[in-house]
Amino acid sequence: MLIADALVMTCGEAGLGLLPGGAVLVEDARIAWVGPTADAPAGAGPRVEAEGRLLTPGLVDAHAHPIFGGERAAEFAQRAQGCSYQEIAARGGGILSTVRATREASDEMLLAGARARLSRAVAHGTTTMEAKTGYALSVDGELRLLALLGRLGPPTLRPSLLGAHAVPPEIPRADYVAACAGPMLDGAAGAAAVDVFCDEGAFTLEEARTILTAAKARGFAVRAHAGQFADLGAAGLVASLGGLSADHLEHVSEEQALAMAAAGTIATLLPGACVQLRLPPPPVVRLRAAGCRFALGTDLNPGSSMSESLPLQMWLATTHLGLTVEEAWLAVTRDAARAAGRPEAGRLLAGAPADLVLWDATDYR
Amino acid sequence: MLIADALVMTCGEAGLGLLPGGAVLVEDARIAWVGPTADAPAGAGPRVEAEGRLLTPGLVDAHAHPIFGGERAAEFAQRAQGCSYQEIAARGGGILSTVRATREASDEMLLAGARARLSRAVAHGTTTMEAKTGYALSVDGELRLLALLGRLGPPTLRPSLLGAHAVPPEIPRADYVAACAGPMLDGAAGAAAVDVFCDEGAFTLEEARTILTAAKARGFAVRAHAGQFADLGAAGLVASLGGLSADHLEHVSEEQALAMAAAGTIATLLPGACVQLRLPPPPVVRLRAAGCRFALGTDLNPGSSMSESLPLQMWLATTHLGLTVEEAWLAVTRDAARAAGRPEAGRLLAGAPADLVLWDATDYR
Repeated sequence: MLIADALVMTCGEAGLGLLPGGAVLVEDARIAWVGPTADAPAGAGPRVEAEGRLLTPGLVDAHAHPIFGGERAAEFAQRAQGCSYQEIAARGGGILSTVRATREASDEMLLAGARARLSRAVAHGTTTMEAKTGYALSVDGELRLLALLGRLGPPTLRPSLLGAHAVPPEIPRADYVAACAGPMLDGAAGAAAVDVFCDEGAFTLEEARTILTAAKARGFAVRAHAGQFADLGAAGLVASLGGLSADHLEHVSEEQALAMAAAGTIATLLPGACVQLRLPPPPVVRLRAAGCRFALGTDLNPGSSMSESLPLQMWLATTHLGLTVEEAWLAVTRDAARAAGRPEAGRLLAGAPADLVLWDATDYR
Repeated sequence: MLIADALVMTCGEAGLGLLPGGAVLVEDARIAWVGPTADAPAGAGPRVEAEGRLLTPGLVDAHAHPIFGGERAAEFAQRAQGCSYQEIAARGGGILSTVRATREASDEMLLAGARARLSRAVAHGTTTMEAKTGYALSVDGELRLLALLGRLGPPTLRPSLLGAHAVPPEIPRADYVAACAGPMLDGAAGAAAVDVFCDEGAFTLEEARTILTAAKARGFAVRAHAGQFADLGAAGLVASLGGLSADHLEHVSEEQALAMAAAGTIATLLPGACVQLRLPPPPVVRLRAAGCRFALGTDLNPGSSMSESLPLQMWLATTHLGLTVEEAWLAVTRDAARAAGRPEAGRLLAGAPADLVLWDATDYR
């Protein structure tokens, strides 16, 4: 297929790389050629006239929790009346309420819910999604969710094992950390990365270090939820392990930001959850000055961000967090693909997967 | 048509008025009966099984600018780099750049653009929309836009004449105010209300008083853009004239809030524009304490809020402005209909127009 006369956004190392009047040749589900329409090689298959419309890489959601049972609409109303994340958890809401519903749900129920969410993500332009387990909190349960994620898509999913999402109430804390750092990893060959929620009310820095160090020793890429409520040092830990991404980052020190930039650890921001939980915006100026690259994620989950829309996250990131329009685009393409552990995606360059979005717009801004 | 077994939200004077297991009978495009499904009268036509899904009045957008030429995507990027609304206007952007494009556009171009926007509004649940002129800034041009609005819908439009949106560069200021308060009103029989943008950089309180007093004397309902950038007293002016609505309200005194509540003038909040322009949130606590009723609008326009989605405004209103979930629903139904000058809409009660949304959700929160 040849897509002709598009405003092509390539998202290569130099930046947005806009090519007006550009063309893209697709062969065998890969991008075979990109260049001026006048120079396009004769390819097999149909020719699509883009008529100046914007053609970008398919969007990459760098942080999502698409598989879970139940719903938590009541918490949204409680929060609008002033309850905090921590108060809602103390009342029996929060992550553990979704854990109960997920454990009770059949495979078919979990798959049907996830499919509906993934279909809305595709409708909003997402072609790759980092997709976490984390609502079973047992070795067998987390590996069940990992296996279910392996049966889902499009979008192309990059599953993260998030056994360490919360401490299950029925297991001593130290035993569960040991399970996350041992037996759970044994069965997790299908995971693209291992993730830990390291924050106040979740896992400590030492617990996160135990789990992520064990994961790295077994060859897994690592990542963490870091600094959403308090800075425990998780972003620096991920950087020290050469991890893919530290996520949330409402609280992160300059020292850790510099370590992330040096390690190539992406700063993944989640504006939907930030606004919905009334958190302070992450220190974008500090992260930018340190040389960090940004990614954006929907944080799709039933409690703090029930949205599949990356365009909405881009709007919030520019209006509320202070990203530029250019940063927002790279944060849902090139750099989100790195954060999700699929660096070959998120670029519109020869050899990349042919994940494309042709927008009904002629201006990328 | 009978819609059976729905979670009916009636939005009457007592509040949301939720009726689980409810049914609604529609006859001749009106709501003929609302009550428990078991008591539903036998009606003609099909029976829709809602299976517990939420059934609400069609949403009402209380403030929108759906008809204009051109686009202003570049300003979005400028703003993300720190330019203010006023700086962008001083560079030749802002309202006057849309005025140039609107004057140059053919009727068919203006109608086609508006139809695309209205179609997206309907897809987001909007069935009534307050729809302003304001991008022509001449007597003939504004009346042309008013006539074009009369050819559009669904949603059902309630047109406002907004000749006083900005001062046209080619006419002495006092002459244009006199035109808005005289000849323009002569041809505006199709307008449901007359509107003025009274703020720093727009019209003064005295100019607004001249125009709105003349409009009221001719029998028009009145409204104003008030206190978006500075409190010039426009909200109090609208209240003193018994007007439908004062809109924006990032800056409004307690005295004016009390006057609005006493007059039944609705406080229409525009969270999309508030966030996109990085304005302080309106004083919701003060307005609520004064007894004001809230409406929400998209403020759909090419500069400060390019969105047709009232559900997005509801999310922003609860997360960013501090409305409760209940207030947000009434602000896009019952009270938005009053603000838009169509008080018979926005309610799911016998006799009301059969504008309904059946949501793919079983919880209104």
